[in-house]
Amino acid sequence: MYCLVKFAPLFLAVAVCNGWLFGDFVGKRSELDEISLWPLPQKFQSSAVAFKLSPARFQIVQAKQSSAGPSCSILENAFHELSVDEPSAVLKAANVWGALRGLETFSQLVYEDDYGNNINKTDISDFPRFAHRGILLDSSRHFLPLKVILANLEAMAMNKFNVFHWHIVDDHSFPYMSRTFPELSQKGAYHPFTHVYTPSDVKMVIEFARMRGIRVIPEFDTPGHTESWGNGIKDLLTPCYSDSSPSGAFGPVNPILNSSYDFMTQFFKEISTVFPDAYIHLGGDEVDFSCWESNPDIQRFMVQQGFGTDYSKLESFYIQRLLDIVAATKKGYMVWQEVFDNGVKVRLSIHVWKGRPQYQDEMAQVTAAGFNALLSTPWYLNRISYGQDWVNIYKADPQNFTGTDAQKKLVIGGEACLWGEYVDATNLTPRLWPRASAVAERLWSDKSVTDVDNAYNRLVQHRCRMVKRGIPAEPLFVGHCRQEYKGL
Amino acid sequence: MYCLVKFAPLFLAVAVCNGWLFGDFVGKRSELDEISLWPLPQKFQSSAVAFKLSPARFQIVQAKQSSAGPSCSILENAFHELSVDEPSAVLKAANVWGALRGLETFSQLVYEDDYGNNINKTDISDFPRFAHRGILLDSSRHFLPLKVILANLEAMAMNKFNVFHWHIVDDHSFPYMSRTFPELSQKGAYHPFTHVYTPSDVKMVIEFARMRGIRVIPEFDTPGHTESWGNGIKDLLTPCYSDSSPSGAFGPVNPILNSSYDFMTQFFKEISTVFPDAYIHLGGDEVDFSCWESNPDIQRFMVQQGFGTDYSKLESFYIQRLLDIVAATKKGYMVWQEVFDNGVKVRLSIHVWKGRPQYQDEMAQVTAAGFNALLSTPWYLNRISYGQDWVNIYKADPQNFTGTDAQKKLVIGGEACLWGEYVDATNLTPRLWPRASAVAERLWSDKSVTDVDNAYNRLVQHRCRMVKRGIPAEPLFVGHCRQEYKGL
Repeated sequence: MYCLVKFAPLFLAVAVCNGWLFGDFVGKRSELDEISLWPLPQKFQSSAVAFKLSPARFQIVQAKQSSAGPSCSILENAFHELSVDEPSAVLKAANVWGALRGLETFSQLVYEDDYGNNINKTDISDFPRFAHRGILLDSSRHFLPLKVILANLEAMAMNKFNVFHWHIVDDHSFPYMSRTFPELSQKGAYHPFTHVYTPSDVKMVIEFARMRGIRVIPEFDTPGHTESWGNGIKDLLTPCYSDSSPSGAFGPVNPILNSSYDFMTQFFKEISTVFPDAYIHLGGDEVDFSCWESNPDIQRFMVQQGFGTDYSKLESFYIQRLLDIVAATKKGYMVWQEVFDNGVKVRLSIHVWKGRPQYQDEMAQVTAAGFNALLSTPWYLNRISYGQDWVNIYKADPQNFTGTDAQKKLVIGGEACLWGEYVDATNLTPRLWPRASAVAERLWSDKSVTDVDNAYNRLVQHRCRMVKRGIPAEPLFVGHCRQEYKGL
Repeated sequence: MYCLVKFAPLFLAVAVCNGWLFGDFVGKRSELDEISLWPLPQKFQSSAVAFKLSPARFQIVQAKQSSAGPSCSILENAFHELSVDEPSAVLKAANVWGALRGLETFSQLVYEDDYGNNINKTDISDFPRFAHRGILLDSSRHFLPLKVILANLEAMAMNKFNVFHWHIVDDHSFPYMSRTFPELSQKGAYHPFTHVYTPSDVKMVIEFARMRGIRVIPEFDTPGHTESWGNGIKDLLTPCYSDSSPSGAFGPVNPILNSSYDFMTQFFKEISTVFPDAYIHLGGDEVDFSCWESNPDIQRFMVQQGFGTDYSKLESFYIQRLLDIVAATKKGYMVWQEVFDNGVKVRLSIHVWKGRPQYQDEMAQVTAAGFNALLSTPWYLNRISYGQDWVNIYKADPQNFTGTDAQKKLVIGGEACLWGEYVDATNLTPRLWPRASAVAERLWSDKSVTDVDNAYNRLVQHRCRMVKRGIPAEPLFVGHCRQEYKGL
């Protein structure tokens, strides 16, 4: 299947995998509860009739009927059917991404007993509830070695996530190595050689993700959160003033200089080439106005433009010009909710993150205005507390707000965010998993799948499956896995 | 030094390590702040004069004057002096354990620059504030593979901890493989082969710890927390009743049967042989009386003994007999605070854990009664919260209660506890470190060492040192290490 995905990403594939040759019928299975699918499929019918998988004869083949169609959207539109019956299991999917999801489901149906691997007679029909099912990782507050990123892409695939939102740079460091502006990482990374993502690193992440049906949406957050950019690019940031002279500190991107927009034009031209996804996340959050307010040139510009003292108008002015620049690269864009809150005019996707724990009003307003909405507020997984906090993560629903059906349809999904203040390679993976799995089921399974006890039982086994596959997903509560984690 | 420790543990050793041959004088050091000793020594004088360590000529040798004395208590009484000057550094210690601590300090004095390893001219005189500096790990709620235990012993040595409190069994599982009662783990472990500590595993843990100056105090908690014991030992636990017939459930150890005490006699005879430390932790916490109350035989016994309905008297009755049994093995014992709260008569060490965040009253009462006290209440590191919770861990002081000097002297130290409800091999190490390092400095360094900003700067570097040595200690906050963690 990897070959199919790799060489035929643009074809509509009806992937039919048969030829799973089974051994003898092994009778009724005693512990049916051990089949723990995660996230739960839309339709699922299992029987106690079990087949043995023969290691010698097991194979996955593409069916003769497998056809190549005219289009395979990079945006996933998965729909597949999986049917297991002697002597072969059949997987039908509308495209390769759906086939990948089906293979993951197949692997979750296999269970071990004392005599080998088994699978029960099963019929599954499945598709995701939301199209955008993401994880945000932050490689600026702490540098994340490639190994950690790749391992988490593996875990994402096990949970049917399909978007890696790469918050790659921020105030604290600029690890992205730019071909156009190499001084950005030379002067902005924690270390110019050891703490950077080279072009080939980035390419590897994108390809590794694509092979697992995961889009990579990079975030280059401006005009705030850009302190590290200023090290490499002269005059990009606003000089802050104190007592009518420059204080030596710098604020957000300087929105009144043409040079700032010239830089952004060249920079996003590169980004749009390096990252093949149709979307770029442009940030736009938490712009601190105090530096702009202190600067006499900015003050003069505010008067010229008739903005009065409303600096959110200046922010919108900047964002509008940035959107025009990025639009010229033919990319779509997403932004954090402040851009909407400040009254942007252009149609884009709004990423809701504020107002913990009440996000409902913002979701209602964003969708009422006709914008696509993406939810993260209840899924800031960097926030931790003692005990089983996965339950509240699981209970949050992106469509749980007052609005019309049309509004609900504008909710394209959500993202679990793991901001990097307290997280690096030492603790990222167990902090993210299996808590992010709770988000995964909310975004994939039917709205009605809300039984916490049932979820607990499946999730306990799903986390052991992740552990068995080498992902150090932390325990939900007291207990054990047949195979405990072997790393450190 | 390991050989010295290994083959001469019973001698008083004046270990003098000279022969560290230095290269050329490398001049004043620019970044003195990079010397980050943790925990901070009692007396420390450093100079900017730096020497280069020559890889080709560097060696550690025992001085000719190194003498063997008549005794080396297993209980550490470390005192050592470390002096670095050209052409050799000298380490004097009253015993081998002190010499080990001095070598750790020496390793922390070495710093890298572009040309190799350096060390500054330094004089240190050091000793621990408290004799008992422990870490509790819980291998019952989750089984901890040997690899994890050994790695944490390494980290303990880096932080000058000297007691591994091994909470080895509890309600949930009994992984300790007993030679006398093999059915305990056969029926009480999560898995009788893969989730147990064999005699040779236990021996390895003890020896690995001893080589690092760490005592292993096992805890076999009774009469409560014993559910897993009941699987292997018939009639050990109290049958609970409902509606005047046995409900099928079991409660604490049955304190009215002679067979219970016969079992404990044999069991603790084995434990006293397997674990060489002079102390055993006997638990005694959180005894649930409801099962005892339901049982008619127990009710009858209460009347016979004149206990009325005060079941804490029954608990004390059990504990008193258990203490007599363990005393016969020539071991000392520690217990959780409930045993004191219930009015035990025998002199023992009381482990204070309740009353978060106010532990001062209990510490005052325990020491006023003349008992040794050991503090854990503020150091339940299994409890987590968002942000820099190491600060409160660091601020807690075991002698911070109202009492006489004599009372303060009865405080023998403290333990950081990492209970296992939410912790296993996947997340234990980053959750424990560097938060436990905050406890380490409180228990080692002078009472006056309380500057949080200074501690932050040293701890950031100390945690990078742990990472460099292969321990996935999590970050305190935004930043980076020169060498990031290479595992997952």
